[in-house]
Amino acid sequence: MPPFGLLIHGGAGVLLRSEVSPALDQACRSALTEALAAGYAQLESGRPALDAVVAAVRVLEDSPLFNAAHGAVLTADGLCELDAAIMDGRTRAAGAVAGVKHIRNPIALAYDVMTRSEHVMLAGEGAERFAERIGYALVDNDYFQTERRRQQLRRAKEIEAGPADPLKAAQAQQERVGFVTVDDHDDGPQGCPAEERKWGTVGCVALDRHGHLAAGTSTGGMTNKKFGRVGDSPIIGAGTYADDATCAVSATGHGEFFIRSVVGHDIAAQLAYAHRPLAAAAATTLAKVGALGGTGGLIALDAQGNFTLPFNTPGMFRGVHLSGGPHAVMLYGDEST
Amino acid sequence: MPPFGLLIHGGAGVLLRSEVSPALDQACRSALTEALAAGYAQLESGRPALDAVVAAVRVLEDSPLFNAAHGAVLTADGLCELDAAIMDGRTRAAGAVAGVKHIRNPIALAYDVMTRSEHVMLAGEGAERFAERIGYALVDNDYFQTERRRQQLRRAKEIEAGPADPLKAAQAQQERVGFVTVDDHDDGPQGCPAEERKWGTVGCVALDRHGHLAAGTSTGGMTNKKFGRVGDSPIIGAGTYADDATCAVSATGHGEFFIRSVVGHDIAAQLAYAHRPLAAAAATTLAKVGALGGTGGLIALDAQGNFTLPFNTPGMFRGVHLSGGPHAVMLYGDEST
Repeated sequence: MPPFGLLIHGGAGVLLRSEVSPALDQACRSALTEALAAGYAQLESGRPALDAVVAAVRVLEDSPLFNAAHGAVLTADGLCELDAAIMDGRTRAAGAVAGVKHIRNPIALAYDVMTRSEHVMLAGEGAERFAERIGYALVDNDYFQTERRRQQLRRAKEIEAGPADPLKAAQAQQERVGFVTVDDHDDGPQGCPAEERKWGTVGCVALDRHGHLAAGTSTGGMTNKKFGRVGDSPIIGAGTYADDATCAVSATGHGEFFIRSVVGHDIAAQLAYAHRPLAAAAATTLAKVGALGGTGGLIALDAQGNFTLPFNTPGMFRGVHLSGGPHAVMLYGDEST
Repeated sequence: MPPFGLLIHGGAGVLLRSEVSPALDQACRSALTEALAAGYAQLESGRPALDAVVAAVRVLEDSPLFNAAHGAVLTADGLCELDAAIMDGRTRAAGAVAGVKHIRNPIALAYDVMTRSEHVMLAGEGAERFAERIGYALVDNDYFQTERRRQQLRRAKEIEAGPADPLKAAQAQQERVGFVTVDDHDDGPQGCPAEERKWGTVGCVALDRHGHLAAGTSTGGMTNKKFGRVGDSPIIGAGTYADDATCAVSATGHGEFFIRSVVGHDIAAQLAYAHRPLAAAAATTLAKVGALGGTGGLIALDAQGNFTLPFNTPGMFRGVHLSGGPHAVMLYGDEST
């Protein structure tokens, strides 16, 4: 029997066992377990890897615990602005949406961009017009917003505003003239409580019973995000990539560094052109991201069922369920399958 | 003396010598020559490759002959919506803008996103708010629009509307219910006059006297574009990529296929991981694009001064000027350096 199964992630960052309450720990494990089960059920019944990716990512999008769809972080304008992408390893077809504000499950819209439009990437209101055209009901942005994220935005704005000392504030303002500071990190700037120093993007890679791969990623981007910033999640080749001939990859982290390193395709290219094994290729690529200064992690799976879940942060929400193989959810750096 | 120089392109497509008037032929050659000269002057005086890319692309953006900035194609709403990206091979820093409507030179804004923000990609009105913040004067969208492009949009809409026969129109409409047709090709749908069956994106790759590479691309996307479609030009790794260790690439063509093939990084990865020469790597990648059904071309340059300008269309607007090497502009498939 050829292997089938999936990996998921719910973000990477400063996740120290000592700083996560038992209740939050349990809630995260439950949500990851539910997402794994939703995806695995699709694969077990013979459905395509794409369906497993959509099913698993939907669960994580619907959970308020992760930075995607319901529970996403807020922009500087106090809105949730969502990006997602999906790719079919069988055909290398792909779909992505960036900056949507009224789509309950962005991963589903990315799938529809792939399968029901001639395009790969649709951005902003245009993507929502497409959604309406094919029958989506747009949801109010309030649906995505949670009190926890509103508090994070308030803290981020306080940190951005800087000290009350008017001289220091003026200096900080001057520094911003040439270099427009927006925010340091997805899902919370430096200096915020530990639970917020993480990247909350969610994603899934899957291998179906027919040997086909798929990858999908969904995110709310950065707390206090400005200027229509787009991260790596909806960039095919960077945060999301799948090709049956090599591997499927979904990343989470400081998106700018993941874009510059073309993370997903860089891993696939090492398999294709240097015939390196998956885990070694992923480690090499993540080391390049780290050398640029980037933090985060990724999940990757090949058509033989080899997989890896590396991260250069203290922890990463993650899970794996392979037929006849490991079945586990993990949060911290000291856990392994 | 180490080599330095640059390549440019102004789009690829159906460019048959017999179908281009002598006046248009001459105007295109003049504009390409001017763009090459603007970039080469930067390099000759010791300026960075990035400056040459911006200088050359600005000339092509300002010319009404190409599908970028002034003279860009129109969306279904009758507006010009512009994408651009730039990448620094020295640091792998990158900047990109998507869907801007009031930025005279999108390549300059992409440069400023790279150098004056913490981000790689800004989209839509957010990108324009960033531009204003750093001192840009927004221009009216009318500045970009030309009568020729308005005519192209009218023709595209007529073709889209289909035959006057009400039965056939109803059938065509039914076909659109499931599969939302937008347009077949950048810069003009199938069935339009030959001059419009091309991809008008512009781009430049440059190698400076210090051995550093850079790449930049700018486009107006597709005639009759809907739904906020984003093509490959602003996608780092696809339409635009540069890394001193491998090569600089700028592409033009049916963007969806170039995104799915991660064109720029796929060429670079063959150099890095399979140690293939540049021209062979580029040919392999373009063949992959073709195998998916995509048409277009690209320019690529490595740090040793090796270069290639392949396309799988009848012609491509292109030019090359290398120190101590070729200096030529070409339009058709039967011209070579």
